[in-house]
Amino acid sequence: MKTQVIVLNGGSSSGKSGIVRCLQAVLPDPWLALGTDTMVDAMPAALRASDAGIAFGPDGGVSIGPEFRALEDAWTEGVAAMARAGARIIVDEVFLSGAAGRQRWSERLGGLGVLWVGVRCEGEVAAGREVARGDRVVGMAAAQAETVHRGVVYDLEVDTTRTESLVCARTIAEHVR
Amino acid sequence: MKTQVIVLNGGSSSGKSGIVRCLQAVLPDPWLALGTDTMVDAMPAALRASDAGIAFGPDGGVSIGPEFRALEDAWTEGVAAMARAGARIIVDEVFLSGAAGRQRWSERLGGLGVLWVGVRCEGEVAAGREVARGDRVVGMAAAQAETVHRGVVYDLEVDTTRTESLVCARTIAEHVR
Amino acid sequence: MKTQVIVLNGGSSSGKSGIVRCLQAVLPDPWLALGTDTMVDAMPAALRASDAGIAFGPDGGVSIGPEFRALEDAWTEGVAAMARAGARIIVDEVFLSGAAGRQRWSERLGGLGVLWVGVRCEGEVAAGREVARGDRVVGMAAAQAETVHRGVVYDLEVDTTRTESLVCARTIAEHVR
Amino acid sequence: MKTQVIVLNGGSSSGKSGIVRCLQAVLPDPWLALGTDTMVDAMPAALRASDAGIAFGPDGGVSIGPEFRALEDAWTEGVAAMARAGARIIVDEVFLSGAAGRQRWSERLGGLGVLWVGVRCEGEVAAGREVARGDRVVGMAAAQAETVHRGVVYDLEVDTTRTESLVCARTIAEHVR
Repeated sequence: MKTQVIVLNGGSSSGKSGIVRCLQAVLPDPWLALGTDTMVDAMPAALRASDAGIAFGPDGGVSIGPEFRALEDAWTEGVAAMARAGARIIVDEVFLSGAAGRQRWSERLGGLGVLWVGVRCEGEVAAGREVARGDRVVGMAAAQAETVHRGVVYDLEVDTTRTESLVCARTIAEHVR
Repeated sequence: MKTQVIVLNGGSSSGKSGIVRCLQAVLPDPWLALGTDTMVDAMPAALRASDAGIAFGPDGGVSIGPEFRALEDAWTEGVAAMARAGARIIVDEVFLSGAAGRQRWSERLGGLGVLWVGVRCEGEVAAGREVARGDRVVGMAAAQAETVHRGVVYDLEVDTTRTESLVCARTIAEHVR
Repeated sequence: MKTQVIVLNGGSSSGKSGIVRCLQAVLPDPWLALGTDTMVDAMPAALRASDAGIAFGPDGGVSIGPEFRALEDAWTEGVAAMARAGARIIVDEVFLSGAAGRQRWSERLGGLGVLWVGVRCEGEVAAGREVARGDRVVGMAAAQAETVHRGVVYDLEVDTTRTESLVCARTIAEHVR
Repeated sequence: MKTQVIVLNGGSSSGKSGIVRCLQAVLPDPWLALGTDTMVDAMPAALRASDAGIAFGPDGGVSIGPEFRALEDAWTEGVAAMARAGARIIVDEVFLSGAAGRQRWSERLGGLGVLWVGVRCEGEVAAGREVARGDRVVGMAAAQAETVHRGVVYDLEVDTTRTESLVCARTIAEHVR
């Protein structure tokens, strides 16, 4: 079965966005990149800082409210519809609740050829990259490094701790059918 | 019928994005904002500067190729699916081909409550705002000011030439059911 | 005396940045644009959210600490030195303390040809534009609209409430010698 | 002699910006970060794409014109003045002409305590990171990786090819007096 969707899951500052851009560059066909960041940017500013939406604690914790969850469900449904309509899609995700996050996407992506990829990065290294980026709440990288992978089964895992984004992207591209 | 999708159509630098953020602030429910810019950002960098994708001429002209068009069709399908799945959506669009652009969206949004809004701005004023923004190819504003509205029928039109974004947003919000 | 520095003072969301980009476009010589935002971006992230640096309250209040003030003094000195070394400079400023802010710059710019420009915008309109921008703490525009001009004497004032940035820039450009 | 200025020189995508943010985080005092990017952003848009200013070729080449050079000289003078006025400064630079670039800064920084740091990264790795960033002209990283260091003498060199930004920053911080 042709790969129609590539789902990358990894913690904050694990290097997903860099891999996504490299994948778009190395894959021969055009792929749309849509991720949690795209969705959060599309939400009202008020929801980005409220208990009903998504709130980032000073220590890097992230809490999700019911209105965020409702929009996210519709978003996921829509991304699946784009793939069914013929677009190749790279989903750049953070499964805050681990296996439940993959389950949520699996249900929506039924019938599509999906490549599940875990993007790992040692917590300490990711935390250092978070400082180097300078645009993220410090603490998220460490908090998410392990938890987002809990109980998640992948087709393939890459680790950016000591491997460049472009090299990880090439490894993933070899698994795309 | 409840309004489920608000489609804003207007030329570059006509003030659509400002109206969208104001709409998200004044509407009581949370609305997702998805537009041409979101889609273009999701595309591979290579497609953003190629004949098969979308190319911005030095004079402000925009040309669209077959690969861009194919992804756009799937994107439109997916946005409609998000609305059907319960998300309220504001679509921020530039109908480069005028009425044909509205037609393309109309077909996808069948059965949904849609509010069609024209965002006008006098070409000369839009061109000045393009200079003030400093991040757009100079010439797009003037080139698109009239053409994007050609033959397009709206439920409502606003004009940012002498009216603030927030005031335009309030006018639109009164038409949302 | 030749104009070597243009100092624009105005509250948050009064439209200074747009005027600056238009000035750079309409003035025949190349002018460097340096403002409060440039300086704040150059500071350590930690100082951007601390009592010793600059802190933005949830209601739009801004408080300045001693370490911020020390860096600001050196920054002002350096900008004056750039002008003395021959660069034409547009300074984009927010005199949080009104006349004292102008005084601080006057002392540093001694001997240089300076054009002092007040950029006004009615508080309610600036507050609406703050919502439309979506990237500023809501409340700053209203809080600063009047206070930044208290006791400040200008060579020229422009008002963006009902006048476009480009038109304001042309008015200012006519006063540049 | 106290370190008052840290000058980092390295090619595009060698990782300077990340090191700068880490340095600001690990150094106990507040340091201002000012670099080529800050200066280029301060220039008129027209100069950023002209023969008199700075032009980026499609192959990653960068050419500098007389008006750019004049503004750059004044900028350098001003940054030195900021340091003399008491601000600690991190300069993030690309010596396009190698040793001549260091010479230009040396003359301006006379009498100040300067730490000269070379930031190296193997061309192939930097080129891969350029793809991962997605916001730079592809080709600059490879073109500059070696040339910017030609004939330049440093107090210290770091290499980001296999060392994280934060680790490089800690090494540099140990040399700050």
